[in-house]
Amino acid sequence: MSHNTFGKMLRLTTWGESHGEAIGCVLDGCPPNIELSIDEIQSYLDKRKPGQSKYTTQRKEDDKIEILSGTIKSNSGNHLTTGTPISLLIKNKDQRSRDYGEINDKFRPGHADFTYIKKYGLRDYRGGGRSSARETAMRVAGGAIARKIIPDIRIRAALVQMGPHEINRNNWDWDLINKNPFFCPDPEIIDTWEEYLQKIRKDGDSTGAIIEVIAENVPSGLGEPIYGKLDQEIASGMMSINAVKAVEIGAGFKTASMTGSQNADQIVINDGNVEFLSNNAGGILGGISTGQDIIVRFAVKPTSSILKPVKTIDINEKETEISTRGRHDPCVGIRAVPIGEAMLALTLADNFIRNRGQIG
Amino acid sequence: MSHNTFGKMLRLTTWGESHGEAIGCVLDGCPPNIELSIDEIQSYLDKRKPGQSKYTTQRKEDDKIEILSGTIKSNSGNHLTTGTPISLLIKNKDQRSRDYGEINDKFRPGHADFTYIKKYGLRDYRGGGRSSARETAMRVAGGAIARKIIPDIRIRAALVQMGPHEINRNNWDWDLINKNPFFCPDPEIIDTWEEYLQKIRKDGDSTGAIIEVIAENVPSGLGEPIYGKLDQEIASGMMSINAVKAVEIGAGFKTASMTGSQNADQIVINDGNVEFLSNNAGGILGGISTGQDIIVRFAVKPTSSILKPVKTIDINEKETEISTRGRHDPCVGIRAVPIGEAMLALTLADNFIRNRGQIG
Amino acid sequence: MSHNTFGKMLRLTTWGESHGEAIGCVLDGCPPNIELSIDEIQSYLDKRKPGQSKYTTQRKEDDKIEILSGTIKSNSGNHLTTGTPISLLIKNKDQRSRDYGEINDKFRPGHADFTYIKKYGLRDYRGGGRSSARETAMRVAGGAIARKIIPDIRIRAALVQMGPHEINRNNWDWDLINKNPFFCPDPEIIDTWEEYLQKIRKDGDSTGAIIEVIAENVPSGLGEPIYGKLDQEIASGMMSINAVKAVEIGAGFKTASMTGSQNADQIVINDGNVEFLSNNAGGILGGISTGQDIIVRFAVKPTSSILKPVKTIDINEKETEISTRGRHDPCVGIRAVPIGEAMLALTLADNFIRNRGQIG
Amino acid sequence: MSHNTFGKMLRLTTWGESHGEAIGCVLDGCPPNIELSIDEIQSYLDKRKPGQSKYTTQRKEDDKIEILSGTIKSNSGNHLTTGTPISLLIKNKDQRSRDYGEINDKFRPGHADFTYIKKYGLRDYRGGGRSSARETAMRVAGGAIARKIIPDIRIRAALVQMGPHEINRNNWDWDLINKNPFFCPDPEIIDTWEEYLQKIRKDGDSTGAIIEVIAENVPSGLGEPIYGKLDQEIASGMMSINAVKAVEIGAGFKTASMTGSQNADQIVINDGNVEFLSNNAGGILGGISTGQDIIVRFAVKPTSSILKPVKTIDINEKETEISTRGRHDPCVGIRAVPIGEAMLALTLADNFIRNRGQIG
Repeated sequence: MSHNTFGKMLRLTTWGESHGEAIGCVLDGCPPNIELSIDEIQSYLDKRKPGQSKYTTQRKEDDKIEILSGTIKSNSGNHLTTGTPISLLIKNKDQRSRDYGEINDKFRPGHADFTYIKKYGLRDYRGGGRSSARETAMRVAGGAIARKIIPDIRIRAALVQMGPHEINRNNWDWDLINKNPFFCPDPEIIDTWEEYLQKIRKDGDSTGAIIEVIAENVPSGLGEPIYGKLDQEIASGMMSINAVKAVEIGAGFKTASMTGSQNADQIVINDGNVEFLSNNAGGILGGISTGQDIIVRFAVKPTSSILKPVKTIDINEKETEISTRGRHDPCVGIRAVPIGEAMLALTLADNFIRNRGQIG
Repeated sequence: MSHNTFGKMLRLTTWGESHGEAIGCVLDGCPPNIELSIDEIQSYLDKRKPGQSKYTTQRKEDDKIEILSGTIKSNSGNHLTTGTPISLLIKNKDQRSRDYGEINDKFRPGHADFTYIKKYGLRDYRGGGRSSARETAMRVAGGAIARKIIPDIRIRAALVQMGPHEINRNNWDWDLINKNPFFCPDPEIIDTWEEYLQKIRKDGDSTGAIIEVIAENVPSGLGEPIYGKLDQEIASGMMSINAVKAVEIGAGFKTASMTGSQNADQIVINDGNVEFLSNNAGGILGGISTGQDIIVRFAVKPTSSILKPVKTIDINEKETEISTRGRHDPCVGIRAVPIGEAMLALTLADNFIRNRGQIG
Repeated sequence: MSHNTFGKMLRLTTWGESHGEAIGCVLDGCPPNIELSIDEIQSYLDKRKPGQSKYTTQRKEDDKIEILSGTIKSNSGNHLTTGTPISLLIKNKDQRSRDYGEINDKFRPGHADFTYIKKYGLRDYRGGGRSSARETAMRVAGGAIARKIIPDIRIRAALVQMGPHEINRNNWDWDLINKNPFFCPDPEIIDTWEEYLQKIRKDGDSTGAIIEVIAENVPSGLGEPIYGKLDQEIASGMMSINAVKAVEIGAGFKTASMTGSQNADQIVINDGNVEFLSNNAGGILGGISTGQDIIVRFAVKPTSSILKPVKTIDINEKETEISTRGRHDPCVGIRAVPIGEAMLALTLADNFIRNRGQIG
Repeated sequence: MSHNTFGKMLRLTTWGESHGEAIGCVLDGCPPNIELSIDEIQSYLDKRKPGQSKYTTQRKEDDKIEILSGTIKSNSGNHLTTGTPISLLIKNKDQRSRDYGEINDKFRPGHADFTYIKKYGLRDYRGGGRSSARETAMRVAGGAIARKIIPDIRIRAALVQMGPHEINRNNWDWDLINKNPFFCPDPEIIDTWEEYLQKIRKDGDSTGAIIEVIAENVPSGLGEPIYGKLDQEIASGMMSINAVKAVEIGAGFKTASMTGSQNADQIVINDGNVEFLSNNAGGILGGISTGQDIIVRFAVKPTSSILKPVKTIDINEKETEISTRGRHDPCVGIRAVPIGEAMLALTLADNFIRNRGQIG
């Protein structure tokens, strides 16, 4: 039972609070003899980093990652894993905890403030402490290493809906993803999103979003029925991301209104290869990967820390209002894009390790 | 790592195949001194049992549950738990495996046939073997015991969408649930569902559905951040149910199109008690229960075994068609209603045990 | 956290009380495509079975094992594993619970009666309930299957000390083990043991013993540092056997009085192969198997249920004496021989599965 | 499955190599609202620290512990736990890896060099990397925190045998323990040990030892049958310590030569309290604590790195000799005394947390 650990054989244990000295993680179970480049890990972290555009929190953090254990020097001067636990650390820089004065005494609706007090009797109020999205930096770092364990699998994600504005899937362009501040794959919707987000910010408000994560070139046979289904572990991973309230695989909720014959991903032989005529299953049947792309979508609710005043109570259970100052993402879903990728990478690498010597 | 086990401190391990001699489970971690009535457990099983109405599979199974261990006789002649593992068993009766002749050699699209072969190199083709919904009987039995561990929490579920037909939530009537074959809470939609399902069946097809599960009177403080969030464990539980492809908590995917001020469940004091003005969070903030109702929805895809022929391949990777005869639910989502309840009961009881002496 | 489960990837969950209707287990994680013969499993159970000689309890149990799930029929009519959980069951026959009248109210010194009441507030007093050695039948059954997962490894055990009488290791003859009622490898000590045990029994007393278990042809590389050391998992397995109070690997406690140069298992090359000049390490260095024989010894304390009266208290904390009638082993260590083998087989098979595709 | 993690609800995950930049751990599951003093944690580390006397390695390490997460400031300026993971770190100072030149290419008999290469295909040869006793510093730090979770339980340990020289238990004086370099409780044997160790060191050799750990004031009811027995978890913890090859509870191996009536810890009522007339069970019956003192003994084999040349092979499987220079403990068992205490503290605190709200 490990509440701060994700994974079964590849295990990511994270630690650290938003406004503590540092955050870090231990990644245990990484196979030996894998070459890691600090620059490569850093490049994933940079995608999640705060302060990247005017649409994300202006907190200034380098998010500079250090590897403290688990590797020796490779011939090319990189890190070479040894099979022992990899300890990663990021020192916090811009902690500016003075911004959080008011939330010391009041509960932000929609935020974990209320429940942490209920559970623990106290909390680290500085920037949300452990419940802050800052923790997710370590997921991205762990995910970057997980990718090296399954180098043949390509994992990418995109924002597919911001507020009420959904992309047109026919416009999907993977190349666009890293060329706009929203990880948006549809060139035609970017302006709409930009305007919408400006307005939201001006209103002192925030917005929700939907992220889609896709893994290509997945071997069939990953996932363990009955209670270690790949769908389960993916859903668990995505639901562990801050502010996520929904997750679906493949056609997801749409399957409810389908008939069996519509939903059936029919199978043919094409050029000697097994081919599915659709992918409503999102690459998973009976909890086991089929070999098709794995497709996951999850919803991120709007940031709870907003300037717009809302009714709440204080720690003495007196009624009051709260208007949260400080540097917050108007759409925290944007920065969830690299996090969703990381969670899928960690889940697949974990399943891959479990199936070593067994499948494809 | 326990692929056939659900839960951390209250652990349900299920075993058995659809057409084997018996199915069963071991429920480990149940506290001592809890009185169990076989009739009460049976009453939950009867709700899930096949052959209950013309809308569920006509397989005839008594689903008569036996308790083989973990209890002594209570003063009133019931079972009294001793804290040791509870072994439950149901003998299979109506196995009629001749019905499954054709699927020995062909893969049903949408079914686990394909992936089991890919993973294990062989499978128990008789009625889907382990991937059959028959396994879920033991979840319902385990869930019935889980309820006795958390007697103050009330857990109920309903079918809220069948195919494209959604209920009107204003008509919600809990009393109706057990008085119609669909676990439907809306009197005005029953006829529509009935007609729709008749048509689907006549077409040799099947349909998907959405189930909503609600837990009332939940204490605040259940759930373990960061990677043992209550949302995670509920999502994992629901995703472990056969044919489930999506799950959401509270407002779920709708939060994506909300603003922060709309989504915020504002807090007031009413008659001296903390009261939330809405429940978009579905009773969970930061992975921890708030004390509000827990609200979960999940989608069940249409049954994959349909009479309507669909393209597929056989085990020699030759193209063919398949038309699945046999007794199948035209809407397997109906029987998922008591299963969803059971998974939530198991999840909450497990979390309750973990927090013994800490909360409430 | 699974208190009735042993193993990590190969997981044995046992259930059932000494005087309940049946005992059983679920073995989860067994690879598919392994052929199992009921007769072979039964042959191991028969070695542990009560009533085998006048030196073991006269309770009459067939211990007839049934396989309820996890297999299909192989071409030769045997069971073929499918990768799904294997459910095993033994119906209890000779429960004769009337023998246990007195221990309903009194605590047997050295027995779990006292602690079960302290922990659970109640207990199944009939024959010790769950704390009875009857549970170990399922370990032997599970161990028999575990052996088939690691067919190249040979696991055997012997009784090496009964009461104060130790064998002479120079006389060690494996062929003798199954030809005497004590699993004794030394022909010269059998008479001494026989006389000693007769006397012990006549006195209404019991005696302790030491068992040695040896695994040959073990691949190097099994075991996981730092906290999943092979020594740890073996020690944990042996300590889980009823009445075991001590365990050692290789030279064990003797290493305390050795010097480093004496203890060093020096390494040479013999005929092109790595060869160790001794095996004080018992085949494990740094928690990982070396490829040498694994050697484990454990002590079983004397049976706590004895006719000879000893001071104790009753459940009302009144002083009294107890003299336990009923059918008890005068040296429960004898029947621990096949159990020790089983625990080592389960531990090694579990480690083997974890290392699939990695070693050997 | 967590190979670098110890414990179930209180989980210590350690990381770091002997000659890396730092070593550290994450302690997850510590309850909130516990006050921690850095000085107090440091005081336990100082007992284990190298270079304390001429009888331990002369490596110079401050072993200065830092707390990086999991606490806020208490009113008295100490650390107050919040229920989130506690990250601890010690920077390595005196790494002097040049001393280890020769062992880059040769395997030290009795050391993990050989098995790490066999398992991982490579290793961090600098000072043994992860298999070095340096890792145990984090156990002592974790154990110091564990003690604060169970403040009523007193845990102490002593060296009871060095080489062939055993203490006289009648001389046992707890006050002496911290006043001599051996943690010896018997004033009359100190000179003998001193002479013996001088001789051993002069010979370029090393010696084994036996440590005894005792926990007083333990509540009854800790430990989980059947496979989470307190004996099991204690044995597992002790066997996880470097160089430990044997462990026993209470009378341990001596029970083998006892009769049942000798071994029975008879129970009487003394002054209204339950009293046992002996403690052969070492405070544990049926895997559950009785309330008596818990008594554990374990053997530490002689240090494998010795100056005295022994036969071995190099990484090219050529025969050679090795004579290990560098700074090594002639009796590594001495520094195992505080480690044994820490492992028992971690085990008991873990069990205490699991039983919150249930016992005592």
